[in-house]
Amino acid sequence: MGRVYVAGVGLTKIGEHWDKGLEQLMVEAALKALDDSGLSRVNSIYVGNMAGEFLQEQAHLGAMIAEDLGMVGTPAYRVEAANASGAAAIHAGAMEVASGKADAVLVVGGEKLSDGVIEEVSSALMMGERQEYEGFMGADFYSINALLYKLYMRRYGVKDDLIAVFSMLSHKHAKGVAHAQYPFEVSLERILSSPYISEPLRRLEVSGVGDGAAAIVLIGEELKPKIKTPKTELYISSATDFMTPFEREDPLRFQSLGVAVNRVLDEAGVDRGDVDLVEIHDATSIMAAISLESSGFAEPGESGRLAMRGEFDLGGRLPCNTFGGLKARGNPFGATGVYQVAELHLQLTGRAGKNQVDSPRVGVAQSLGGVGATAIVTVLKAI
Amino acid sequence: MGRVYVAGVGLTKIGEHWDKGLEQLMVEAALKALDDSGLSRVNSIYVGNMAGEFLQEQAHLGAMIAEDLGMVGTPAYRVEAANASGAAAIHAGAMEVASGKADAVLVVGGEKLSDGVIEEVSSALMMGERQEYEGFMGADFYSINALLYKLYMRRYGVKDDLIAVFSMLSHKHAKGVAHAQYPFEVSLERILSSPYISEPLRRLEVSGVGDGAAAIVLIGEELKPKIKTPKTELYISSATDFMTPFEREDPLRFQSLGVAVNRVLDEAGVDRGDVDLVEIHDATSIMAAISLESSGFAEPGESGRLAMRGEFDLGGRLPCNTFGGLKARGNPFGATGVYQVAELHLQLTGRAGKNQVDSPRVGVAQSLGGVGATAIVTVLKAI
Repeated sequence: MGRVYVAGVGLTKIGEHWDKGLEQLMVEAALKALDDSGLSRVNSIYVGNMAGEFLQEQAHLGAMIAEDLGMVGTPAYRVEAANASGAAAIHAGAMEVASGKADAVLVVGGEKLSDGVIEEVSSALMMGERQEYEGFMGADFYSINALLYKLYMRRYGVKDDLIAVFSMLSHKHAKGVAHAQYPFEVSLERILSSPYISEPLRRLEVSGVGDGAAAIVLIGEELKPKIKTPKTELYISSATDFMTPFEREDPLRFQSLGVAVNRVLDEAGVDRGDVDLVEIHDATSIMAAISLESSGFAEPGESGRLAMRGEFDLGGRLPCNTFGGLKARGNPFGATGVYQVAELHLQLTGRAGKNQVDSPRVGVAQSLGGVGATAIVTVLKAI
Repeated sequence: MGRVYVAGVGLTKIGEHWDKGLEQLMVEAALKALDDSGLSRVNSIYVGNMAGEFLQEQAHLGAMIAEDLGMVGTPAYRVEAANASGAAAIHAGAMEVASGKADAVLVVGGEKLSDGVIEEVSSALMMGERQEYEGFMGADFYSINALLYKLYMRRYGVKDDLIAVFSMLSHKHAKGVAHAQYPFEVSLERILSSPYISEPLRRLEVSGVGDGAAAIVLIGEELKPKIKTPKTELYISSATDFMTPFEREDPLRFQSLGVAVNRVLDEAGVDRGDVDLVEIHDATSIMAAISLESSGFAEPGESGRLAMRGEFDLGGRLPCNTFGGLKARGNPFGATGVYQVAELHLQLTGRAGKNQVDSPRVGVAQSLGGVGATAIVTVLKAI
């Protein structure tokens, strides 16, 4: 398998972009990433997008983006794995580089959620679960999360503050971040006094609805010495699990994530102790807690206490969601996995500005589709 | 780049499957393909599907199919490139095998169109074109095809019979085919007396609406000697073009297809003269004609005359759509590209029954997304 490197990243600010369409956001991110890499052409384009067919009635985003970028002719595809679509597009792009067929691949993740009213966005999100089972039962993404939340509190004897702390953490890191949707701090008290959206899950424990796009350029061994841009090495692996958490051996463990983390660390030849920072999929506070525990970065039931102690802060033992995570940087579904990897890349190349972690060598990004039915995990290494 | 082989295929009959859901069709095809390959496990699953989010409000088909197959844990993704989604899934799966990361990959293409009324299916198909441009203008997939049809007749001075002949050809080959949606012959007179759906394009020149799924198993060099199933070697390449034919240098030439065919023949080390049979994307009769000409298997404006002379018949110079093509075998959008490759595999391994072409060594499948905006071309070689 050939080696794969990240050679450029581009981000748009996440927000309600009433003046831009889905394509425009993706083009903006893609051009920034190409510019960052110094390349003007790639062999292939991979687009990560979850809900465009439902919200924009637009498929075929690969060919559209190729045309929009002035790269008519370039092979282009869309990859989808629900909320992990961006990471899935990175995976597919990385495979083409690793195979040697491509020497440079552009991966763009984008989502335009403000085109839909909130019920439509919630329906779009629900497409990541089983419509004919959970949907038919009236259970949506948030109610499934609420059930996990309750079970977690009961099993581990913790209160909601030890779960909600992850939303506070992400907001703390998003403060002043140019591309974040909510670049400000939110106190734990404020989070815990926000209304329930599905008891005991509160509104401020859930990532918001925003538009955004992120892009990365992947290159292979041959191009590596030829371009001077800062680079990182990329490893990516994934696994699936039962769609419905309540059919799993343990609903409070994302086994997909555990498997994928083990697999990718093994491929990258690093141990958990070597990991300097981690991006976790905090679509909800409870998913953040379960993610850290499922991947072995905290003991079961312990992650909240570690967060309270500051272990996941920028200066802590394992900085987590250093630009605000899904909660505060924002979560445009199909773009999120690409934002995560782009952010790791900025950290590992020392370009994270005021959010810079001290000389990190290894970063991990965890992207989840549905409530953990798909886990795609990326390791970036400084080189 | 590692070599990639097809080691098993599975097909469902295409039709209106009121008693089966999208997943069930895909599971049926997948189990048949696994059975044909003799494998019970694969490293990854790639799903090709175009319109599930729109018609079934269901994304995340990768993880769902993994679970349905009893392969919980296996990495799984969906790939989409409009009507070429099945071929796009094959491409992604092939890249993972070629990279050496996977030694066995399952590719399943599926689409359930009878869940929607005809207007919804037409809207779903339109998602392969630009909604904000062509859609906004009131031009749908069929009217764009009708415009090409008119232009073709005018430029080359041919009448509609030399275009409609491709629908007759596909029906001739579909006769008695177990998995075909319309396994019977239709005369040219009948086709040319059917009502217009967008003048001059007639109802019987357009592929129907059907449900179906097809699957193939791809393996790498390491597994090849270990399993005894009939195998073929696979090469795949693709290209894009402007979404709208009327922005292209020549609307009557699918440049994407020309580029992709040249590229994949080059990779496979074969000339056009070595090609023994071809599967073309006859979503409409006019697309069939343009496809054969764009890929260099006929001179511009000449393909209809060659078809009339029997050159594309089962016993002809270059047998085309040997199981009925999109028109008569059927066209469940995201499954179609997988049907094509599966059918080539049956031919090249001598298992095509009464449709068997005489000892073919090289087959080509052309899959198009939109009206040629994406072209993904596969070469299968007998081994």
